[in-house]
Amino acid sequence: MNTLTSKILDGVRSTLGQQKAALHEPTFEGNEWKYLKECLDSTYVSSVGKFVDQFETNLAEYTGAKYAISVVNGTAALHIALKLAGVSEGDEVLVPALTFVATANAVTYCNAVPHFVDSSEINLGMDAGKLRDYLKNSAQLINGKCVNSFTKRVISAMIPMHTFGHPADMENLLAISRDFNIALIEDAAESLGSYYFGKHTGTFGMFGIISFNGNKVITTGGGGAILTNDIVLAKRAKHITTTAKVPHRSEFIHDEVGYNYRMPNINAALGCAQLEDLQFKLRAKRRLFHLYKENLANISEIRIIEEPANCISNYWLQTIRINQENEFLREEVIETTNNEGYMTRPAWQLISSLKPYNNFPRMNLDTSESLVKGLINLPSGSGLISKIT
Amino acid sequence: MNTLTSKILDGVRSTLGQQKAALHEPTFEGNEWKYLKECLDSTYVSSVGKFVDQFETNLAEYTGAKYAISVVNGTAALHIALKLAGVSEGDEVLVPALTFVATANAVTYCNAVPHFVDSSEINLGMDAGKLRDYLKNSAQLINGKCVNSFTKRVISAMIPMHTFGHPADMENLLAISRDFNIALIEDAAESLGSYYFGKHTGTFGMFGIISFNGNKVITTGGGGAILTNDIVLAKRAKHITTTAKVPHRSEFIHDEVGYNYRMPNINAALGCAQLEDLQFKLRAKRRLFHLYKENLANISEIRIIEEPANCISNYWLQTIRINQENEFLREEVIETTNNEGYMTRPAWQLISSLKPYNNFPRMNLDTSESLVKGLINLPSGSGLISKIT
Repeated sequence: MNTLTSKILDGVRSTLGQQKAALHEPTFEGNEWKYLKECLDSTYVSSVGKFVDQFETNLAEYTGAKYAISVVNGTAALHIALKLAGVSEGDEVLVPALTFVATANAVTYCNAVPHFVDSSEINLGMDAGKLRDYLKNSAQLINGKCVNSFTKRVISAMIPMHTFGHPADMENLLAISRDFNIALIEDAAESLGSYYFGKHTGTFGMFGIISFNGNKVITTGGGGAILTNDIVLAKRAKHITTTAKVPHRSEFIHDEVGYNYRMPNINAALGCAQLEDLQFKLRAKRRLFHLYKENLANISEIRIIEEPANCISNYWLQTIRINQENEFLREEVIETTNNEGYMTRPAWQLISSLKPYNNFPRMNLDTSESLVKGLINLPSGSGLISKIT
Repeated sequence: MNTLTSKILDGVRSTLGQQKAALHEPTFEGNEWKYLKECLDSTYVSSVGKFVDQFETNLAEYTGAKYAISVVNGTAALHIALKLAGVSEGDEVLVPALTFVATANAVTYCNAVPHFVDSSEINLGMDAGKLRDYLKNSAQLINGKCVNSFTKRVISAMIPMHTFGHPADMENLLAISRDFNIALIEDAAESLGSYYFGKHTGTFGMFGIISFNGNKVITTGGGGAILTNDIVLAKRAKHITTTAKVPHRSEFIHDEVGYNYRMPNINAALGCAQLEDLQFKLRAKRRLFHLYKENLANISEIRIIEEPANCISNYWLQTIRINQENEFLREEVIETTNNEGYMTRPAWQLISSLKPYNNFPRMNLDTSESLVKGLINLPSGSGLISKIT
């Protein structure tokens, strides 16, 4: 084993102790059981119910968004946000290359084309400076629409993502959105509890979306939400995610092509309990970050990814980056730590390199390519902290 | 109040007693709590887990399908079944006009066009005789493909639905599927526990789909399943509904545009318990049918919809049909029974008449139009029977 691998393993072991540590395991230490039972007893386990209403209210309150619409998962949330932002067949949508594949898939569901953007070394999100220069050189405003000068397609939306919970450069991304007339949808799937200059992520753009998958800060089993401050868009989102059924005592009238994207009440019951414990979980995750930082501080060949300046990160996934000289050790580090019971993993492969997307438009992706070679996610669940002796 | 309305109300009251009766309320009388707790304790509430595997195994065993793939709801199941059946952009898909809007929506998600088919007076499903005559006159096989002679579009699939749980005329529909080379997907959303000549609905076509929405015979909160006897299609269905992620210890490789359509483990936990009680629920629903039949027998102006010959129906929704002469009373009957605490409702509006679909191709829909005017669904939950004194 290389010395660096050994030092990283020691740092992880010093942080987590001898426990077997998953990458991100959910914890259920609050009212989960109580609410689930209440939900079953009410028989309202399905498409409507008080937990759905309560979850949406509490989520809006927590994030500061005016409206929250719960849905079946983050992918569905993105799909609807894009649709309601006006993304049409044949449009292009700017997405980071360094993200989960769902971001690009949602664009494809709209019969639109993902167009890949490079990431920042600092926050791992869309590089606003590079994006502005790129658009200046390769797009132009024609009748108020941003048109790709090469493909002649309209670039109608952009989806910055708050990678591993670290807020992206919202001020400069919003400026691009305004200057080039590109609708901004925030992919806050990973960043519930993360703030940019004091304002919750997911509340800056036309829409923000959140995921409650089992590996997220809090979970509803499967689930997601759409955030917006616009009442008209909020009503449209609720309508189109609930089969576009027009309220009526008994008749079934659907006034447009809708989706069955509702979060079931039983999943929302879980979410209500999880949301009550969010602050506790976030504190535990922050403490875990500081422990990792301390225990890995002396290893000059790596850096731990920290929240950007003026931001609060939820530290969803703790992440280290091995420097370029040593990135050949990434596989060894991952294998060694996993063999020792610490579940680590690389970042996603760039979606721009995946088979379904490797022929789509992109800017130069040097930084993303470099990041992917060196990034490693460490065990990050909020439950790890209580197990540390 | 009209005498007929009064007689129907009396028949319903004699059947249900003084209870307040929902249209179809789920009941949780088995291992639901036990399995939910086990699921929470395991922390596997999300996209994978033993309940998902168990639910799929048990569902395949129960229906006799070789493979069952659990998904997030029936709409998602239909979408994927159509996609894997090869339905492409610009194709037409034959769907009943008398069904829930999801059937047509799923066609639209494939960028295909729903083409509406009339229903049978007997089983309320696609009228096979009428459909065959229609296709003979308005479609032709060109290079092995069924082509609509008027629109020149390929008719690539047909989706018969087992309405309110009553099996459609599968023998003749399958013959049409073969003769015209149209892929057959069975919409068995409502018919878990229904059999056609001893074989479970949903197991005849290339795919069958089932729904576990809260109003169905059994529920997973929200949920659905895809049934198939073809191992290649089964593997494709599992793959594409789980983001098309290629199995790998740590890397994220997705080899096609996938969907996030997995049923969460916590919903599957509920489903496992519900499935154990299915036979009990079906017996209760059958008993309820016989009670309604008895208590409504003397009303010559209506008939109660019975399972077709050689079929076993799950009697998902108990249904009466008012004869043509008296169908003007439908609203009064619905209003009166609802006011008395018995939740009744009309059948769906024909989807061919809804705003998003009223310009799409259709055959003559006389029977469907007539059926809709006279059909009324009565309270049908399996829990109603135990409350009857």
